[in-house]
Amino acid sequence: MRSAYHDHLDLVVDELVAMTHQVQQSVARATHALMTADAAVAEQVVAADAEIDAIRDRIEDQVFELLALQQPVAGDLRMLVAASRMVADLERMGDLSVHVAKVARLRAPEAAVPAEMTPTMTRMAEVAVDMVGAAARVIADRDVDAARELEQEDEEMDELRRRSFRLMLGENWAHGVEPAIDLALLGRYYERIADHAVSLARRVVYLVTGETVSSLSS
Amino acid sequence: MRSAYHDHLDLVVDELVAMTHQVQQSVARATHALMTADAAVAEQVVAADAEIDAIRDRIEDQVFELLALQQPVAGDLRMLVAASRMVADLERMGDLSVHVAKVARLRAPEAAVPAEMTPTMTRMAEVAVDMVGAAARVIADRDVDAARELEQEDEEMDELRRRSFRLMLGENWAHGVEPAIDLALLGRYYERIADHAVSLARRVVYLVTGETVSSLSS
Repeated sequence: MRSAYHDHLDLVVDELVAMTHQVQQSVARATHALMTADAAVAEQVVAADAEIDAIRDRIEDQVFELLALQQPVAGDLRMLVAASRMVADLERMGDLSVHVAKVARLRAPEAAVPAEMTPTMTRMAEVAVDMVGAAARVIADRDVDAARELEQEDEEMDELRRRSFRLMLGENWAHGVEPAIDLALLGRYYERIADHAVSLARRVVYLVTGETVSSLSS
Repeated sequence: MRSAYHDHLDLVVDELVAMTHQVQQSVARATHALMTADAAVAEQVVAADAEIDAIRDRIEDQVFELLALQQPVAGDLRMLVAASRMVADLERMGDLSVHVAKVARLRAPEAAVPAEMTPTMTRMAEVAVDMVGAAARVIADRDVDAARELEQEDEEMDELRRRSFRLMLGENWAHGVEPAIDLALLGRYYERIADHAVSLARRVVYLVTGETVSSLSS
């Protein structure tokens, strides 16, 4: 029979998965606000960040309680320390989606993304949303193979970022400095969301296999 | 008489302070590389990041060992959980200084920072380096007042960032898109270094006073 303690540990994992889904939704909605220049949706994303922070507080409290009261042994302890790090990644991903939403809000009703950049930016956002979804599955199922696929998606993100720079620095760029600054920062936000998704997956790989993957430095 | 356990806890704090100084040096050297277009110094910053990561590994191992073997009670446990978060902040600050160095390296022997942006960018870097130094003192001395001063310096950083945007978007900007993208990203890196310094200080305030300061969302 499983103990209340193990149920509590499972609950932490369930909450992490729920938080990851919440972050995924936030990235998707911020992107929708960006691509449709919809200030109202952008505003919703900014407001909903408080819910993500509330889940963070709840998980942090649970982790602390388990550490303090249950004195977990090595495997469980490692899981709880990882959970505490993953919560920090997820909170940050939520903040980054808020940054995307704020660019949309600042420029609305104008579009922040010029037409010729739309395919690249749309794909960047898709890759980011996919990667966050994949991270949720990695966490829920301890799926090490899915974690490795995530690393490949991250390479597509890097290639998309390079493509966006080529467009902005090409001779056909007619939009000047302001959209270029917006797009450079937007690209950075999506890239960081992707990096954090990889980081979440690596923490799970480490828990399952004990194998450290070299840390991201982007 | 103090126990080996408490000496070990103190050692974690000492290592955190040492890591903060290492990060401060990395930010200062990356800035030097940037402002003098010195690819060799930039390269040193990139290479030295491995040392910062090594301190991170050491502190993480110490924290884990203390958690696993000593089953610390509430106050010490809170300190160890905070230390684990602070290590993550510091690692990230090191990565951000590497990003600054990489911009310097990419543009050298040209300067990445145009002359009219030099005062703003120099001041941004000074504020960032100061803030990291202040964070080290906050950690070493549990100095809550210094932590509050740090928040004020962070406001200067925000103002400098706004000034840099005004310069790039003003009608006298004659450098086009590429330096503007570099500067927008450089400003972001320094701003994030400052945010992490504030975050380090807030964790100490929380340990000392139990008072949570609302989390940064930039």
